[in-house]
Amino acid sequence: MENIKLLLEYDGTNYVGWQVQPNGPSVQAELEKALGQILQQPAVTVAAGRTDAGVHARGQVVSFKILKSVQLPQLLKSLNALLPADIVVISIESVPSDFHARYSALYRVYRYYLSFRPTAIQRNYSWYVGGYDIDRKLLDACASSVIGEWDFSSFCKRDTNVDHFRCTVGKSEWTQNAPGIVYEIRSNRFLYGMVRALVGTMVEVARGHREYKEFAEILIAKDRERAGMAAPARGLFLEEVVY
Amino acid sequence: MENIKLLLEYDGTNYVGWQVQPNGPSVQAELEKALGQILQQPAVTVAAGRTDAGVHARGQVVSFKILKSVQLPQLLKSLNALLPADIVVISIESVPSDFHARYSALYRVYRYYLSFRPTAIQRNYSWYVGGYDIDRKLLDACASSVIGEWDFSSFCKRDTNVDHFRCTVGKSEWTQNAPGIVYEIRSNRFLYGMVRALVGTMVEVARGHREYKEFAEILIAKDRERAGMAAPARGLFLEEVVY
Repeated sequence: MENIKLLLEYDGTNYVGWQVQPNGPSVQAELEKALGQILQQPAVTVAAGRTDAGVHARGQVVSFKILKSVQLPQLLKSLNALLPADIVVISIESVPSDFHARYSALYRVYRYYLSFRPTAIQRNYSWYVGGYDIDRKLLDACASSVIGEWDFSSFCKRDTNVDHFRCTVGKSEWTQNAPGIVYEIRSNRFLYGMVRALVGTMVEVARGHREYKEFAEILIAKDRERAGMAAPARGLFLEEVVY
Repeated sequence: MENIKLLLEYDGTNYVGWQVQPNGPSVQAELEKALGQILQQPAVTVAAGRTDAGVHARGQVVSFKILKSVQLPQLLKSLNALLPADIVVISIESVPSDFHARYSALYRVYRYYLSFRPTAIQRNYSWYVGGYDIDRKLLDACASSVIGEWDFSSFCKRDTNVDHFRCTVGKSEWTQNAPGIVYEIRSNRFLYGMVRALVGTMVEVARGHREYKEFAEILIAKDRERAGMAAPARGLFLEEVVY
């Protein structure tokens, strides 16, 4: 048995998400189908982050085990030939047998792109927050306030797969990225819907729809009913996974 | 009569180009249809650059005259509501009656994106030049050699609308842009197919398919049969038009 690690980029626009689901095409299903065709054996893949429908990845990491040994450069080439154009394998390597794309990760990096005007080129890769003034200072203040170890129960969707909601956030920062701004968050783990709930709530504060002090109150409340609306999936990228 | 100037961004993937053509949807037709609906009068638009099928624009400039006066912020809003999501009006202003999007331009800026690996997110916005080693020094040397005033007959497609082929190139430069590089060229005018012919020929040199000295020979030859293949449309952006 050989343990394989893939670095994957995908445009999530046309997928129901990473995970295989009955209601539409998933990135995992496309990848496992291509692997099965090439390897002539079923491949069960594990991803570092189970991205939602419409969420993109520039640095998703996937691991899987194969029975027979293969030429990795050839496998990379064959995968990219078989996969749809919106899924690309960037690199492939053999890793120790205890490597697990999800459990071995030290931290993950997500980015969320806001646009201050409608954009044609970035229309599937950003959230246009038009029609309201965005107070950048409030966005920055909200972002800073989640750095550290917190229980993010308020900022996630119900997920019965986790036994606690604590995440250690090392970076949480907005920076310029014309024609808008980009939010980068690094954390040892992310809960289901966490980044989109954080961004959606931060934007409500920055638009003046909520008070800034409410943001801290929501975090402390550990109540998933309190957060704002989720920001749209299309602005979110799984950027990097660090092991 | 009021003279109006629009700044336009579009994703050219699904269009036959800027110009109205019988064989498919054009950016001009979409824009003129939306203008006609809003203004209740036919609008004849002129663009700074007649981009080809599949070519994108981040800074196309369009001018047109209208008979009755309109509220420009409202016109901007209405246009973006009516236009397809892959065409966006960035700004709109009233300009002196002698302003002409094409003839008043001092220079135009185009960018061409090369990618060194397949990419999912940029698949419609770059040319993946895989399978060959690209010699960056040769690309740089080719790019530098077209700076100045030259007759670009060798680097264009037949176009009966122009009476000479001289262009004054002020900038012609490759820079890093992960996962590839980007070429920026500024010129007072561009001939039909010029940037794609230049990039295609530079890449042939950088791949070792042609000698570097051939590039200068082609330029001097003023023979449109001599240039290399045109680089694909999807990597090309009309970036800016300066007046």
